[in-house]
Amino acid sequence: MISQAKLTHALEGVLVPGARRDVVKMNLVRALSASGDKVSVVIAAVALPPPAQEWLKSKVEEVLKGEPGVKTVDVKVIAAKPAEVNVVGKVIAVMSGKGGVGKSMVASLLATSLQREGKEVGILDADITGPSIPRMFGLSGVKPAGNEDSIIPVLSATGIEIMSINLMLENEDEPVIWRGPVVAKVIQQFWQDTLWGMLDYLIVDLPPGTSDAPLTVMQSLPVAGAVVVLSPQQLAAMVVRKAVKMAKKLSIPVLGVVENMSYFQIPGSKKRVEIFGTSHLAEMAEAAETTLTVQLPIDPKLAALCDDGKIEQYRSKDFDAFAKALSTAKVRQA
Amino acid sequence: MISQAKLTHALEGVLVPGARRDVVKMNLVRALSASGDKVSVVIAAVALPPPAQEWLKSKVEEVLKGEPGVKTVDVKVIAAKPAEVNVVGKVIAVMSGKGGVGKSMVASLLATSLQREGKEVGILDADITGPSIPRMFGLSGVKPAGNEDSIIPVLSATGIEIMSINLMLENEDEPVIWRGPVVAKVIQQFWQDTLWGMLDYLIVDLPPGTSDAPLTVMQSLPVAGAVVVLSPQQLAAMVVRKAVKMAKKLSIPVLGVVENMSYFQIPGSKKRVEIFGTSHLAEMAEAAETTLTVQLPIDPKLAALCDDGKIEQYRSKDFDAFAKALSTAKVRQA
Repeated sequence: MISQAKLTHALEGVLVPGARRDVVKMNLVRALSASGDKVSVVIAAVALPPPAQEWLKSKVEEVLKGEPGVKTVDVKVIAAKPAEVNVVGKVIAVMSGKGGVGKSMVASLLATSLQREGKEVGILDADITGPSIPRMFGLSGVKPAGNEDSIIPVLSATGIEIMSINLMLENEDEPVIWRGPVVAKVIQQFWQDTLWGMLDYLIVDLPPGTSDAPLTVMQSLPVAGAVVVLSPQQLAAMVVRKAVKMAKKLSIPVLGVVENMSYFQIPGSKKRVEIFGTSHLAEMAEAAETTLTVQLPIDPKLAALCDDGKIEQYRSKDFDAFAKALSTAKVRQA
Repeated sequence: MISQAKLTHALEGVLVPGARRDVVKMNLVRALSASGDKVSVVIAAVALPPPAQEWLKSKVEEVLKGEPGVKTVDVKVIAAKPAEVNVVGKVIAVMSGKGGVGKSMVASLLATSLQREGKEVGILDADITGPSIPRMFGLSGVKPAGNEDSIIPVLSATGIEIMSINLMLENEDEPVIWRGPVVAKVIQQFWQDTLWGMLDYLIVDLPPGTSDAPLTVMQSLPVAGAVVVLSPQQLAAMVVRKAVKMAKKLSIPVLGVVENMSYFQIPGSKKRVEIFGTSHLAEMAEAAETTLTVQLPIDPKLAALCDDGKIEQYRSKDFDAFAKALSTAKVRQA
């Protein structure tokens, strides 16, 4: 009797071409059965050009034939769309209303912390006109694989799936001069036409403001909750309150609040300077109806890691604890 | 013989109701003539409700009758739209691509510096979803006057005309959840339906990104040139390069580049810390094809002035020199 679990385990050794994640994690195994010494498997060929489909088919056959007791393997490859195979646990939107408070950095740190906990994580960069995620992860110039209909996300150094408009541009400095409805369409495509596979978390990095892009994400993606980012400036707090109210209007719970650039630790001293003013974190948490908060200091090291595409190397116990608490918060499933 | 210049000077004493600027600066005097001891004047009643029109009419009559040699005054009040009387010297867009680099602060400082030089200046806050300008000038809660068709801008403490969506909202925390085309329409209204009167400079604070709002401003307003704002972070530089390329594509010259948060001067020490990394100012100026640049430090005092609505009190010799050089740059007229 051939064990189904063993067959599945064997298939975990088959990487999807261009994805660096295996067929099981990408949820491409649509059926798997064994009868006597014969194994039948159905593979969904999502986002794969014909040569990659052929390669995948023969690789699956080879791996399964290597299992004890298996004599014949019947591999059937079927066409499917990403939306048919994607299984995303929770969609978490990182929002801020105000730009430049470190929203993309927080989205990246959140993905990194959750990934370190053993979760499967992806990031959808919904900031179409100011995309920062690929740079944070050192992915400038990397192009995603895919076919005409579908895209395979790019994998970061530690294994986080990433999709961003900047991965699609010839030159990352190229401006995307699109009006709102086009921007909204692209975000929907990033959600529907990307082969995310099986993920525990999809972190969505929203652009600043309360117009098309955040609206599209909140209305057309099954957002479980939002993380709100602000800086200590009162002015930022005012604009961020707009974002909190927007989330409320759209019935999206705020799961936690991150205050970035809270203080600057003078090098070689224990003195902290509140460069951007005193904290509004407690007040904002109250407005957002959450008790989960964390502060991030102004840290030249962190700024350098962001610039060098090495955000995954940053460690903060406080932030890890924040991410862990966030992951256990009760929210609706995607 | 009654001097036309004296009559005009007398009219400079008549403030437009709700505007705190006089009928001459608001360009509401459409005709003025004297014949013998009789003076005829035509006043455009823009953005004024009927009682204010009546008041203005009698005030003009009273002031002109007080001039030596004048016996009878014929005041005719005609209807007009702001677009018919507005005369704006140069429209300068402050842009950045990336949010949070201090764009609104730079727009405010630029307006303040130009105003100190004796120029008539206005600010159009085109950041509809994240408006920061009223806060900078301590105008939270102030409502602009006007009638059904037209708006009179709010005047700052030092006399800068300001129009922002946040002056129109009941509560400044209220989010404006509008899609791009609506945002674009509002910006066009701020340009056309606001009684700017006669201005030497209209500074337009653009929102981050390269979508609807910046596109609308660059395509439908006679922008003479742009000022680009960035921070030392490479990531910001990448996104700002997009904005520079967008300006280029739309044939808008970049007049100058401002690097904000360049360094932090440790209090009580001469040490400067480049908190957000090393400068990319020279590189950005080259990309933008301009030689006019200035750096602004990370300055807790400046942050506090912004938060307290007292930006007009900030002085920086470097920035004043930058503004002066900018004002003499040769650009096309609005």
